[in-house]
Amino acid sequence: MDSFHYIEQLCLQAKQASRFLAQASSNEKKHALQLVADQIWKEKDLILEANSKDMAIAKTNGISPAMLDRLMLNETRLSGMVHDLRHVADLPDPAGQTISDQVLPNGLHLRRQRVPLGVLAVIYEARPNVTVDVAGLSLKSGNSVILRGGSETIESNLALIASIQRGLALSAIPVEAIQLVSSTDRGMVLDLLHMDRYIDMVIPRGGAGLHDFCRSNSRIPVITGGIGICHLFVDESANLEKAIPVIRNAKVQRPTVCNALDTALVHQSIAAAFLPSLVDVLAKDGVTFKADETAWNILGPRGGVVSPAGPLDFDTEWLSLVLGIKVVGNMDEAIEHISLHTTAHSDGILTENAEHAARFVQTVDSAAVYVNASTRFTDGGQFGLGAEIAISTQRLHARGPMGLEELTTYKWVVEGDYHVRP
Amino acid sequence: MDSFHYIEQLCLQAKQASRFLAQASSNEKKHALQLVADQIWKEKDLILEANSKDMAIAKTNGISPAMLDRLMLNETRLSGMVHDLRHVADLPDPAGQTISDQVLPNGLHLRRQRVPLGVLAVIYEARPNVTVDVAGLSLKSGNSVILRGGSETIESNLALIASIQRGLALSAIPVEAIQLVSSTDRGMVLDLLHMDRYIDMVIPRGGAGLHDFCRSNSRIPVITGGIGICHLFVDESANLEKAIPVIRNAKVQRPTVCNALDTALVHQSIAAAFLPSLVDVLAKDGVTFKADETAWNILGPRGGVVSPAGPLDFDTEWLSLVLGIKVVGNMDEAIEHISLHTTAHSDGILTENAEHAARFVQTVDSAAVYVNASTRFTDGGQFGLGAEIAISTQRLHARGPMGLEELTTYKWVVEGDYHVRP
Repeated sequence: MDSFHYIEQLCLQAKQASRFLAQASSNEKKHALQLVADQIWKEKDLILEANSKDMAIAKTNGISPAMLDRLMLNETRLSGMVHDLRHVADLPDPAGQTISDQVLPNGLHLRRQRVPLGVLAVIYEARPNVTVDVAGLSLKSGNSVILRGGSETIESNLALIASIQRGLALSAIPVEAIQLVSSTDRGMVLDLLHMDRYIDMVIPRGGAGLHDFCRSNSRIPVITGGIGICHLFVDESANLEKAIPVIRNAKVQRPTVCNALDTALVHQSIAAAFLPSLVDVLAKDGVTFKADETAWNILGPRGGVVSPAGPLDFDTEWLSLVLGIKVVGNMDEAIEHISLHTTAHSDGILTENAEHAARFVQTVDSAAVYVNASTRFTDGGQFGLGAEIAISTQRLHARGPMGLEELTTYKWVVEGDYHVRP
Repeated sequence: MDSFHYIEQLCLQAKQASRFLAQASSNEKKHALQLVADQIWKEKDLILEANSKDMAIAKTNGISPAMLDRLMLNETRLSGMVHDLRHVADLPDPAGQTISDQVLPNGLHLRRQRVPLGVLAVIYEARPNVTVDVAGLSLKSGNSVILRGGSETIESNLALIASIQRGLALSAIPVEAIQLVSSTDRGMVLDLLHMDRYIDMVIPRGGAGLHDFCRSNSRIPVITGGIGICHLFVDESANLEKAIPVIRNAKVQRPTVCNALDTALVHQSIAAAFLPSLVDVLAKDGVTFKADETAWNILGPRGGVVSPAGPLDFDTEWLSLVLGIKVVGNMDEAIEHISLHTTAHSDGILTENAEHAARFVQTVDSAAVYVNASTRFTDGGQFGLGAEIAISTQRLHARGPMGLEELTTYKWVVEGDYHVRP
């Protein structure tokens, strides 16, 4: 079978499974997820063995320690994944919920009812935990899913999907509800992106190159996101003592993720008082700084941790312990900088001035806009969604963290008494 | 300037205007719409003169009477368009509304606030009223819009857009909020579809070819819809006397639109009693029928209005006074037929059996699912949305009639007291 027909067959099976899932009860879906979790745990040795093959190849290929760490599974991590799956199983089922309900003046009963999207395709890179996360969220929300992981994790993913499907086989849900593209041939990604007859939504989870490839080639709606150049603006009225721990949290708590801080914008009237303490505190965590001219004039190298910002530094998602610093004349200048450099993920203001807070919130158009809080909160779990499949930075369908509800659409249900339109 | 740079310049201007619109007050937008309505009415002679040029060319080109009718403007139609614009001006402004509002256990105040999508592009064909409708809905919801109409209406559209922009010039809103691609060069559609840096949503309004072109070539999310192969299933328990007026309404009230009925599915146990009266009533309105084998055996030619259905007839959106008729063994067979032939626009059941109604609603996954009502109700006005920009038959973002709310997205606003993530 050639690759196009292989992908089409996965799609056909996924579509059929999605029709079953749309009718499945909440209990059937929940029970299936519990069986899947049991099965993964039961087969942990097989999965860890497969993962060690991926690790061995990765080491041979000289992959970076950060990548190796993302790839690596052990019993603790696997236990965490199984725990998360059980947590998702226990969340409320969004499918079937009534979104709106009214009787129109002509007596028609009109309501909108939440239904699954149908078939999802998720294209992702090195982390095997994504396989389990996405499988869980898709099944819980009544969608079938086609997973396409990276070549670095193929052995781990094949072992995980085998366990998942053996779990499903014990349940009322068809095993084709969760499928993995078993080859990492790049052409198959293109085949997937052309399956608009079967697939309802594509989520690429990876770098800008993958997103761009999907946007350029997909006939299916694509949700892009997960890339965050995030800003915090320290206004002249900010409580400077409290501001430092917020910036520190946003930068150092988990620097490799998309909601970590990239640039601190500081009001000129407090810059001289604030910047040295900020730098000294964060330097203890290993942070280094890229300073614009005014900040550089205030700070200097400060023991080598500060250097002048280059032309692209304010357009870089650092994903590491680097922080851009820029002094701005006022809030409008801060907002202007943000509008030019943000990826519209998470941006905030630290201020005691309520009028400034309101205007910042009104004007800055990012998926999450913060007043006096760390950007690290942009997360499905933190926002109370229970879990997240992605963080959208595009505007259609969903913005910011996407949980179960964002994996649904709705249908209009209209009930009448043989009504005709006048 | 080459076409790419011309389109890019429109986009840049639209983007800039959208930033202004996102901050504009409800009153400013409302007032601007009223000024636009005034201006169109003041310049009605110019607009009708331009339209008569389009009409003259269309007649020379031998365009069908139906197309000519869609193209034609007169004082009554223009007055209707201006009236609709004033109606949209008076609708509630969706931008700024709070969708959800909660205080998380950690004290963070988290809310979702509706904001405009940004920049819309609408690509459409022969009707000049679309120019005014779309301009009104976009402006009211705080979006800027780039319109690209068909070559048949270019003179009318240029005149309309000139009036609209002269109206805007008297308002607080930048004239670039509503722009028209002034050439009907096909290549410019492709240029538009590549402007994902500036445009947030593309709505094609036209035939399947246009939708397919947009899906294949767009880097921007596309909302497809407006194509309806619609079904009504007459269950054995239906009140047959009441069923006929519903089917008649769905078929003949306005046969050229997407929510008009295409196929009646009839339960075998009532077919012999029901079909002859159905055909006799609708034949008086000029309807002709395409009957499947069983229906044909019951009906015969019936004075020449019935003929046997061909292989593609149940996959045809008739848009005219033709109705497909098929006899099915039971509801499941009806649902199966619908799942194979529907465009997921509007499908319904006529029944007195509550269990059947519930199962039909649960199983048929169309944008609008009806029980005992005409499919003609699938419409923004009828559903109480005040207006509609399109009827979506795809699943992301919005399904069915799209009004002002569906032209918005949201941002998450997070307010804290210098909160950090633990």
